[in-house]
This record gives sequence, structure tokens and C-alpha cells, in this order.
Amino acid sequence: MGTLTGPKQDRSRATRQRLLEAAIGCLGEYGWAGSTVSLVAERAGVSRGAAQHHFPTREDLFTAAVEYVAEERSAALRALVAAAPPVVGPARRHVVVGELVALYTGPLFRAALHLWVAASNDRTQLRARVTALEARVGRETHRMAVELLGADESVPGVRETVQGLLDMARGLGLATLLTDDSARRGRVVEEWVRILEGVLEGGRRGAMDS
Amino acid sequence: MGTLTGPKQDRSRATRQRLLEAAIGCLGEYGWAGSTVSLVAERAGVSRGAAQHHFPTREDLFTAAVEYVAEERSAALRALVAAAPPVVGPARRHVVVGELVALYTGPLFRAALHLWVAASNDRTQLRARVTALEARVGRETHRMAVELLGADESVPGVRETVQGLLDMARGLGLATLLTDDSARRGRVVEEWVRILEGVLEGGRRGAMDS
Repeated sequence: MGTLTGPKQDRSRATRQRLLEAAIGCLGEYGWAGSTVSLVAERAGVSRGAAQHHFPTREDLFTAAVEYVAEERSAALRALVAAAPPVVGPARRHVVVGELVALYTGPLFRAALHLWVAASNDRTQLRARVTALEARVGRETHRMAVELLGADESVPGVRETVQGLLDMARGLGLATLLTDDSARRGRVVEEWVRILEGVLEGGRRGAMDS
Repeated sequence: MGTLTGPKQDRSRATRQRLLEAAIGCLGEYGWAGSTVSLVAERAGVSRGAAQHHFPTREDLFTAAVEYVAEERSAALRALVAAAPPVVGPARRHVVVGELVALYTGPLFRAALHLWVAASNDRTQLRARVTALEARVGRETHRMAVELLGADESVPGVRETVQGLLDMARGLGLATLLTDDSARRGRVVEEWVRILEGVLEGGRRGAMDS
């Protein structure tokens, strides 16, 4: 679809994008139970038929929406980090960790969380789709984090250190679900950037049995 | 209620407990949308009237359930740690971190997650109740973590280090929602116990600007 051009393709792509963005908004606002294809179509200003032309099932629409926004966020992250201090070191790592945490505290995470929780109680197609999507997005985020942090995964423990950092980012995202947690989050991130810096630069100085 | 004794009070307490445990099971299995008081009563083998005698509203039942299990888990954690190596140091910290992470990867976390996500879309009583409950449980968990880890919060950064660890535990809980993540989780915890040990014992060796 992306390789074709012309007014018709542009309109089709614009419609698809409006549907995906409306789907994210609906998930965040009404949860999975309240998010129907009709509601999304209405919010996007698109007919139900047009919505179903783009996305035959409800699962198609919502997994595509989460994937689309994940890709948007990845591209934005790459661009932002490209503009950050180029030398791998504290300043760049600070920017990178801040942006990684932001991945999990925005509207995408909120929408994805609704999808995960719905999928966890689902014995049908949604669960399989969301699990596969999650694995793909998780691998890509990890790969990008390693690259942007300048982490050397051949050093024992570095892989798990980066994974733990991403787990923490996810946990910070959860903490922001009900209340504005940004002040506390800022202090936690500040401290863990220091700790991470020590681990990545100084080797495993904290290791007790190696 | 806990101070009265006698067969009638015992029965009443047992009924209450069965309802609370059934509520947790329902939340984890059917989510908030699918968890009604009738379903919980049926699962607990209690009449709907008896259920409503104990918990007048659906919100009462489910917030009480999450609170009850949180208290059970706290008590179990305290008991387990009391049986762990008594000297504050690597061996004890390893047990404590493992148990803290376990708090977020079991059925309680799963149930609480459903409640949080439902509350995040709720403009009525549920949101306020769950927010207050979360704040209380969060403070108690933090207090316990500090004590059990032998962390000295008068040292700058230690408070945020412990908070970040609990955020990570929450994130690890999310990662376990759709797939069995226990092998990866074990490796991440192993590595972060080392890192934590370095921070708590060695001061802020990784600090770049202090």
C-alpha cells in the first residue's frame, strides 16, 4: 500500500490512519469491552463499511492500531536520539532512558495495556495476536535500547541489565495509570540513570560472586 | 469483627473470606466487566443476599478483595523473610528481592491489574476507591522493602533506588501476563540483585555528578 501513490491511495491511507488513531483513543477511554468497530468508525468520521474494508475483524483493527502507534513511537524515538548528544556517555544515556520511559507512560501504553489485559482473559484469536505482537514490539524495543545506550551485550549481565531497565519503564507506566506520577518518576529515572551508567561504564562493580 | 469469637462469628468470617477469594478468582478469570456480585457469590457457594450483607456494593466487594489479598501477601512476605538468613547482606537481599518480585507476578497482581485498568476508565466511585487503596498498599510495600533490604533512606538516592526496584517488579508482573516469563525474569532478578547490592553496600559508585 505504501508504494502506490496518487490521490486515491492517499485518501485510503489517510482513512486507515484516522481509524488506527481513533482505535487507540477508544481503547484508552472505554477499554476493550467498550471499544467496538462502530464506535471507532464514528470517532474517525468514517462509515462502518469503509472501516470493515480496511479491517475485517475487531481484532485486526485493534492489534493493527497498537502496532501502528508502536512503530510511530519507534521512529520518533530514533529521530529524537539522533538529535541527542552523539557521544555515548551520560548525557546521551540520560536522554535515551528518559525517552524509553516515555514509551511506557503515554497514550500508547495505556491503549496497549487495555489490549493486554483483555487478551489475558481471552482464549481465542485476540490472545494469540496480542502475544505475537508483544513479542515483536518487545524484541524491537530491546534491540533499540541496546544500540542507543551503547550497551555491550557480550559482557555478562549487560543484556539482563537492559531488560530490567525496560521492565522498570513498564512498571513506571503502570504507576501512572491512576494518578500523575511524573514527579516521583523523574526522581526514580534520575537515580537509575546514575546506576545504569555505573554498570555500563564501570563493569560489574557490584557483583558479589564473580 | 476480628475481635469477636464464637461459632457465629467464625461462620461469618469464613463466608467473608470465601467471598473475597472468589472475587479475586473472578477478576483474574473474567476481568472487571465479567465479574458480577452474583457470579462471585455462586463461586463462593454463598447466597446473593448473604454476599450483599457483607458487601453492599460491587465496588465494596472487589476493593476489599484486593486489600485482603494484599494483606495476606504482606503477612506471608514478613514470615518468609523472618525465616531467611538474618544478617542483612547478599543472601538475605536475594530472598527479599525474589519475594518482592513474586508479589507482582501472582494471582493478586493479576486481579489488581484488572481492577486498576477498570478504574482508570471509571469516573465514579471505583476510581477513587482503587486510587486510595493503591496509595496505601504502595506505601506499605515500600516501607517493608526498605526495612527488609536494610536500606538506609537517609543516604541520597536510596529511596529512589528502592522505588525503582519496585517499579521493575511491577513491570516484570506485566511481562508475565500473556506468557510464562519466569526463566527470563529469574535472570533479570539475579542481575539486579547484584546491582542493588553494589548500590546499597557500596554507596553511589556509579554517580557521575556528585
